Amino acid sequence: MEIIKSYIQQHKNRFIDELIELLKIPSVSADAAYSQDVIDTSEAVKISLEKAGCDKVEICETAGYPIVYGEKIIDPNLPTVLVYGHYDVQPPDPIDLWTSPPFEPVIKKTEKHPDGAIFARGACDDKGQMYMHVKAFELMMQTNSLPCNVKFMIEGEEEVGSVNLKTFVENNQEKLKNDVILISDTGMISNQQPSITTGLRGLSYVEVEVTGPNRDLHSGLYGGAVANPINILAKMIAQLHDENNHITIPGFYDNVEELSLEERAEMAKAPFNLEDYKKALDLHEVYGEAGYVTNERNSIRPTLDVNGIWGGYTGEGAKTVIASKAFAKISMRLVPNQDWEEITTLFTNHFTSLAPAGVTVKVTPHHGGQGYVTPIDSIGYLAANKAYTETFGVPAIPVRSGGSIPIVALFEKELKSKTILMGFGLDSDAIHSPNEHFGIFNFLKGIETIPLFYKYFVELSK
Amino acid sequence: MEIIKSYIQQHKNRFIDELIELLKIPSVSADAAYSQDVIDTSEAVKISLEKAGCDKVEICETAGYPIVYGEKIIDPNLPTVLVYGHYDVQPPDPIDLWTSPPFEPVIKKTEKHPDGAIFARGACDDKGQMYMHVKAFELMMQTNSLPCNVKFMIEGEEEVGSVNLKTFVENNQEKLKNDVILISDTGMISNQQPSITTGLRGLSYVEVEVTGPNRDLHSGLYGGAVANPINILAKMIAQLHDENNHITIPGFYDNVEELSLEERAEMAKAPFNLEDYKKALDLHEVYGEAGYVTNERNSIRPTLDVNGIWGGYTGEGAKTVIASKAFAKISMRLVPNQDWEEITTLFTNHFTSLAPAGVTVKVTPHHGGQGYVTPIDSIGYLAANKAYTETFGVPAIPVRSGGSIPIVALFEKELKSKTILMGFGLDSDAIHSPNEHFGIFNFLKGIETIPLFYKYFVELSK
Repeated sequence: MEIIKSYIQQHKNRFIDELIELLKIPSVSADAAYSQDVIDTSEAVKISLEKAGCDKVEICETAGYPIVYGEKIIDPNLPTVLVYGHYDVQPPDPIDLWTSPPFEPVIKKTEKHPDGAIFARGACDDKGQMYMHVKAFELMMQTNSLPCNVKFMIEGEEEVGSVNLKTFVENNQEKLKNDVILISDTGMISNQQPSITTGLRGLSYVEVEVTGPNRDLHSGLYGGAVANPINILAKMIAQLHDENNHITIPGFYDNVEELSLEERAEMAKAPFNLEDYKKALDLHEVYGEAGYVTNERNSIRPTLDVNGIWGGYTGEGAKTVIASKAFAKISMRLVPNQDWEEITTLFTNHFTSLAPAGVTVKVTPHHGGQGYVTPIDSIGYLAANKAYTETFGVPAIPVRSGGSIPIVALFEKELKSKTILMGFGLDSDAIHSPNEHFGIFNFLKGIETIPLFYKYFVELSK
Repeated sequence: MEIIKSYIQQHKNRFIDELIELLKIPSVSADAAYSQDVIDTSEAVKISLEKAGCDKVEICETAGYPIVYGEKIIDPNLPTVLVYGHYDVQPPDPIDLWTSPPFEPVIKKTEKHPDGAIFARGACDDKGQMYMHVKAFELMMQTNSLPCNVKFMIEGEEEVGSVNLKTFVENNQEKLKNDVILISDTGMISNQQPSITTGLRGLSYVEVEVTGPNRDLHSGLYGGAVANPINILAKMIAQLHDENNHITIPGFYDNVEELSLEERAEMAKAPFNLEDYKKALDLHEVYGEAGYVTNERNSIRPTLDVNGIWGGYTGEGAKTVIASKAFAKISMRLVPNQDWEEITTLFTNHFTSLAPAGVTVKVTPHHGGQGYVTPIDSIGYLAANKAYTETFGVPAIPVRSGGSIPIVALFEKELKSKTILMGFGLDSDAIHSPNEHFGIFNFLKGIETIPLFYKYFVELSK
């Protein structure tokens, strides 16, 4: 423990500088304009793994962006930890809401991060959290304390649905063979109260297109006489929820697990203050499914949100036009047992059925993934909890997250091993938003906690 | 009549070339990026009026784009015709749907325009139709057949609501004094069947903004727990119409004139083929207010259309975000007796009342105008009808248009004179759409018909 602390103390400035360099590369996987930057980032990750001490590092080509694989095998008879992370980031827009450029990292103090936080797109999600593992590995190598084998699989398409990861995993079962998968791509309750994410929501992400007349029309000459695709799209979207904010898609809730009152009471113990929550978001009121509280609505309940909508004239001033087409990006967060492909089909059938004769509708599935629950009595969970307890002084609380890491379910299916989600970010770190940041405290605490996970995982595996 | 025909025959190529030059200037008033082009266009119009024979031409500055005024007073005791038109144009987007660049005019033959049509933004609305009057005036001057006084008022803000015209008209009552106002900014039934627009719809155009959380949020962590501004906006828009497509704004229909069955039977006589209408727009079905047919829905009935909507991530790929804000541009077409400012207030109050506690709503009125009906027994109407009858061989049919020219009501109020809407465009000319065009036949027919209007208007005024 002392060795770990002193090594971090000695090298922390370099750790931070290295992360800042990585954050300067705009690896936005959703926008083809950044494709070279995404490639460059994979190269940077490769080099960092080699420097940290991996024996073998490869850039594995896929149909999309490459997956960086690295490993250090010290003894085939010892357990193997597979670390997963991603080097791609979310698009930075709306860019004008950033207080500093998204790809020019700066360190600023915040209320939640008195020691300072690195502000940059990807600081927390996931370059910063991924890099904790690279540095923790370097630390174990340099202090001769690596207790087992380690493999790294860092991909570049997580923010666009990990579309090529499935094939890669299927085709590399042996290479990726492991005893536990470690991922830091989630958050924890607070810098005083660590938590381990034990549940994730699944995801179905689609794009819809509503077409009315074959060309844009003058709203004066045609207004009222033809179906306006934007009005129709709005009407269709509105029908996806009922007055209790239940989702109206037939069959949508069929496989949703209903938690017992006991389980819900257990969940309710996690520290949460609704007033602070509303205050942080400048909301007069929260809003959601009737019969559930906020922490249930965003974790154990499936949801449907429009992530983007556009159509007609959106420029300056006024244009009296009826658009030919209107579009929306819609995602559904799913809970364990809901099959994302089945849900995508249910959505497509229902949404199409809502269209009046005056328009045609096209639904294009983007991507998706299954929900996941990890048992809190597994060796991995117990090891992680011991590690947190030692570095934070208090045990971690198991929480269900509303987010989705579809590949966790994929890993269990293909690699037959459990995933432990050791997240060190905070909800307030604004991932996917302008001014994303990651606390220096959290970054270094992660590097301190991870080696202990290895230590206890090997001990408990004996 | 022969003199008119031969003059046009002799100069038509020059007329067309001059119009093409005018169409090359992208005078998009809705977009500040084009401001210099709008100014340049006002200069070009000034020069064209001087060349045509006006004694006095002025660029009249306003708080926005200037109004070009020109006049030719031959005898104060003779009647005066005031010609109104506009030199600004609609934005060209969606630009990629144009078959030729919007500001590089080309002449192409179409089914409806076997003699060819000029394709360019503004070709029909309104540069082409406005320029007919300039050339008809030149013709009368050159053939010594101008029978009365003429004044021109050509503005540059019609496509953004003529925001500064009211003040100008109020402050220049004497300068603009006239016996009849002549405008060509509407359409006619077909090249074989002229028509005169006797009714116009009013307009109320607003922009709405729905704000939820103070920043964009990760839809996984917050989805289902906070009001999503896009979903809410869709829900609010959907509530603006009921299942019969009646508008739900309380009081909206209070002043709507209900036409008698006789009047509606009279309207139904205008040639119209629903199958052709649907075919032209690639629609399986038309859509609109229950209890009214297509030609009533777009003329004697008020309507509400979303002209543009945007929010969240609209780029390539997928982004799992809950937007902080969602926006829409909404316009209402009004019928005579509906006061646009009152309707704007009714909309604002109702729309705001639809917002749940989880969001805040802002409604910003863009502009508007009153509806208008012109009597078919007025001297102006009779003179126009005689002119059409002579040049087309058949009398014009009076029609109600769904479009709005708010200034027509303004002129009647401020200048105490009636407006005659001699439109020469066709509904198929795609005004406000990609590939706007104006028939060569229509352009020249207008130049031929206008001098006859002057002739008969003076005769009938004696």
